[in-house]
Amino acid sequence: MTSEADFIIRAGWLFSAEPDAVAQENTAIAVKDRRIAAVGTDAEIESTWHACEVIELPNHLLLPGLINAHTHSPMTLLRGVGNDMPLHEWLFELIFPLEAKWVSSEFVADGARLALAEMIRAGITCFSDQYYFPEIIADIAHETGMRAQIAVPIIEQANAWVQSSEDGLRRTTELHDHWRGDDFITIAHAPHAPYTVEVATFEKLASISEEIQSQIHIHLHETSQEVEDYQRAHGCTPIRKLHDIGLISPRLQAVHMTALDDADLETIAENNVGVVHCPQSNALLASGPSPLMRLCESGVTVGLGTDGAVSNNSLDVLQEMRAAKLLASKAGDEHSTLSTADFVRLGTIDSACVIGRDDHIGSLETGKWADMIAIDMSACAAQPIYDVLASVLLTASASRVTHVWVGGTPLLQDGSLTTLDEQETLARAKTWGTKISAGLRA
Amino acid sequence: MTSEADFIIRAGWLFSAEPDAVAQENTAIAVKDRRIAAVGTDAEIESTWHACEVIELPNHLLLPGLINAHTHSPMTLLRGVGNDMPLHEWLFELIFPLEAKWVSSEFVADGARLALAEMIRAGITCFSDQYYFPEIIADIAHETGMRAQIAVPIIEQANAWVQSSEDGLRRTTELHDHWRGDDFITIAHAPHAPYTVEVATFEKLASISEEIQSQIHIHLHETSQEVEDYQRAHGCTPIRKLHDIGLISPRLQAVHMTALDDADLETIAENNVGVVHCPQSNALLASGPSPLMRLCESGVTVGLGTDGAVSNNSLDVLQEMRAAKLLASKAGDEHSTLSTADFVRLGTIDSACVIGRDDHIGSLETGKWADMIAIDMSACAAQPIYDVLASVLLTASASRVTHVWVGGTPLLQDGSLTTLDEQETLARAKTWGTKISAGLRA
Repeated sequence: MTSEADFIIRAGWLFSAEPDAVAQENTAIAVKDRRIAAVGTDAEIESTWHACEVIELPNHLLLPGLINAHTHSPMTLLRGVGNDMPLHEWLFELIFPLEAKWVSSEFVADGARLALAEMIRAGITCFSDQYYFPEIIADIAHETGMRAQIAVPIIEQANAWVQSSEDGLRRTTELHDHWRGDDFITIAHAPHAPYTVEVATFEKLASISEEIQSQIHIHLHETSQEVEDYQRAHGCTPIRKLHDIGLISPRLQAVHMTALDDADLETIAENNVGVVHCPQSNALLASGPSPLMRLCESGVTVGLGTDGAVSNNSLDVLQEMRAAKLLASKAGDEHSTLSTADFVRLGTIDSACVIGRDDHIGSLETGKWADMIAIDMSACAAQPIYDVLASVLLTASASRVTHVWVGGTPLLQDGSLTTLDEQETLARAKTWGTKISAGLRA
Repeated sequence: MTSEADFIIRAGWLFSAEPDAVAQENTAIAVKDRRIAAVGTDAEIESTWHACEVIELPNHLLLPGLINAHTHSPMTLLRGVGNDMPLHEWLFELIFPLEAKWVSSEFVADGARLALAEMIRAGITCFSDQYYFPEIIADIAHETGMRAQIAVPIIEQANAWVQSSEDGLRRTTELHDHWRGDDFITIAHAPHAPYTVEVATFEKLASISEEIQSQIHIHLHETSQEVEDYQRAHGCTPIRKLHDIGLISPRLQAVHMTALDDADLETIAENNVGVVHCPQSNALLASGPSPLMRLCESGVTVGLGTDGAVSNNSLDVLQEMRAAKLLASKAGDEHSTLSTADFVRLGTIDSACVIGRDDHIGSLETGKWADMIAIDMSACAAQPIYDVLASVLLTASASRVTHVWVGGTPLLQDGSLTTLDEQETLARAKTWGTKISAGLRA
């Protein structure tokens, strides 16, 4: 007797991330009611499951859907503006004024759709977003069938979306209520950073977040300059201050974390704070490197984020895994601490853990949502294959991602997007590019 | 009156590398007798040139063909073997024994074809190769229409190809005579490294090279361990020793160069030695970083190499440019020394200069060979475009290279290889992979 699945995929290789962090050959996966019903060898699945639809991918590797644990999706419309500027100058003299000029509900909708097209093509099935008009991003992710953590911005400065941090806090609660119980969209608080949010606001946030048990997503210790300035003004590091306020908890998602003294690291590790590592953005903005090895060795869970396309240029977690590997390998003595599988886990199960959803996504395990991707391994540039996972980590690009499923629904099928109008999305992006370029030259 | 070209390409953007290192919009290039006849704006070319064949690429960027200044092409058949091992152990305990077991004329031919397929797809129009059976690699490059520097190995250890360094020296002279005057294939001496070649051999090489004015291509100062061991045995650094022997000259191509004291750097700079930077290989083998900024600031010309696929996994100069950028940007203080254009120049004109061919290739200038590539910029992941060169450096992968010409002949046309049987090449590579994998497990 075999059980009936909605569909079965037979794949050349499969990496489940959990419980074993080793790629297997000749594998299959059965999907039923949008969730993973069984994972095993081809023979095991054939003897226990059947389905009308069997997808044959003998040259592909199946991976858990990639998770982009930190981005600002609408900023794709400003992709790469101000390349080669250091963070503080870039943010205050270029990006904030550009945002003041251009950001609107239409900008956010068009930018989010462009980002979704890019992310789905890159094998991303879940993203954490932090931007103005979060209700629009949530709606677009929902329409597109993507999984998302919508991290609602809280910032003192008035902007096109709200007038104050008070408004941001209120809107978070509204969105939190609106999406309560949804399996695909979750809402988090996103205070921008210690240098743009007042202590009093953090104190209010601590009390609200404690009450509704919300996740908190924050840019933290992004540069050593930021930490030094904060210490001068407040007499302690931002981490110490947040700890005093009661915000350092397992519900905190700390993004960047390049500048950490031993006491900060201990505070983070002891309180199970999740860290989002954004290696490419940190390198390009010259923010200095995040101490990935020290964090991992201290037992901190580290996920991966691309940051916005404005600093990274890409929203590509495969590329981010490779950047993490290269930057971690730079120094001769740090060679063998993290394995190939560890780097692939950063962008899958570990990112799921950091955003508090590892019970539901991040690995190919029975009972989890069928969020998964297939990567074609047949190109000359990947052959021959001795270690399929190393080959993905070191040679794959988004172009080799051929299939993407979120909750069992295909969003990318044989290289085509199924839930987004890519031509319309591209046309609108180009129109924005032309308008914004003209403004930059003026 | 207009002159007649063999063909004209009209492209959305063009980056010539020389004389201006700025990308231009709405450009065209006329090709006649395999060389660049004219480069300019669309309007300029239209008013001075005509051709029966006009290739329209409005969404593409034209670049000088990329130059891979250091690889071991047949090692694609060992792609990624021994990932995660440090250099010395990896080389002596895994790679040398594997080579002793498997390398043959057939291995070299099949591996070189696989490498050529990968490199052409990645927009590479010229490569410097250093491997056993160099005469086979030269023939295959010639048949395929690729430009190459064949750097003939000189190593004391007997191998499947020759018995001694004496044989290597003799074969270099024979190949040098055989290919004399060829526009596509040049022959260089390639002593493997100071730790695998005796001083007496270097002395013979110095005299032969002086006589025939050959280029010399060598792995040099790849790790600090190598330099320390050499100092202990010889009382000076390898660079100092080569200088004493008379090998430090503008004809020397020094590959890797991660460990350099000030005196070494001064010697290199004063004598116009070219350096080949292999950032991804150095990072993955934990060799430590090459001091790219210090080299450039000292006036040393630095090209880019992928090294072999066995250490890099890829032969992809676009990826190598990005790795160079990320690794150079890691430290906060090194941010703005090199521009986007500088990184693209590393893999084009600067690599041409290091291998002594910048009079003929490396830039899109009138009179040079028509070695050029087109990159499709229309993907969601590249749009909108504010800075086309930064977009290429930070978002492009080999999959976006649609056209490759070497000396005006298309080797890749609308995504298809024209001079190589890709299916046959892949089938043979997979067969080798199966055989070698079985041996590794045994």
